[in-house]
Amino acid sequence: MMEKKFIYSILYDYYKELLKDNQANIIDLYYNQDYSLSEIAEDMNISRQGVHDALKRAEKSLTDFEDKIKLFYKYEKYQKAAEKIIKLTAEIDDEKYKETVKQIRNEAGKIINEG
Amino acid sequence: MMEKKFIYSILYDYYKELLKDNQANIIDLYYNQDYSLSEIAEDMNISRQGVHDALKRAEKSLTDFEDKIKLFYKYEKYQKAAEKIIKLTAEIDDEKYKETVKQIRNEAGKIINEG
Repeated sequence: MMEKKFIYSILYDYYKELLKDNQANIIDLYYNQDYSLSEIAEDMNISRQGVHDALKRAEKSLTDFEDKIKLFYKYEKYQKAAEKIIKLTAEIDDEKYKETVKQIRNEAGKIINEG
Repeated sequence: MMEKKFIYSILYDYYKELLKDNQANIIDLYYNQDYSLSEIAEDMNISRQGVHDALKRAEKSLTDFEDKIKLFYKYEKYQKAAEKIIKLTAEIDDEKYKETVKQIRNEAGKIINEG
């Protein structure tokens, strides 16, 4: 079970463009920059309760997006497959296939590094 | 340049869950099932102009989603990398690495088959 904070940070990375500006801002301040609700309230000049409610709505939006389009779930799968490919290539320790193995790793690396 | 019809069919597959029900329905009828605007209008009991406007809005939503979260773009990249990996493994034609190559292909196949 992943930590809640970590989950929302990741979902924010994937879906921030779909959030309303103020919701994106609140998620970022709370989950990435460790602001308290009161600090955000002061910063945005709204009530603490208002921040709390907007945060809950933003969290729900993020989990709804993931339920619907599963970007994080799918990407995790692709990444695991690519990592496994890189691991498997280590078994082909052969001068003859050195260049091919290098290219396979390079392709797998594209999948891993382009979240 | 991909055909417009093909693009919206694909974007629909990725993002239909984010569309309003009637928009999803119209895109599906028009782009996947080849209904005309008039046929959709009759089917949904709204005006042809109403269907046209809803279709344009739905198309815009789909391209906006893609602009924002790039699911199709990213997946195409991953898929190309995975296909290239499979192609590269053909160069390792060696009994010694048969099982490893099989596993690499299997992992790459997971990326290709899970759009």
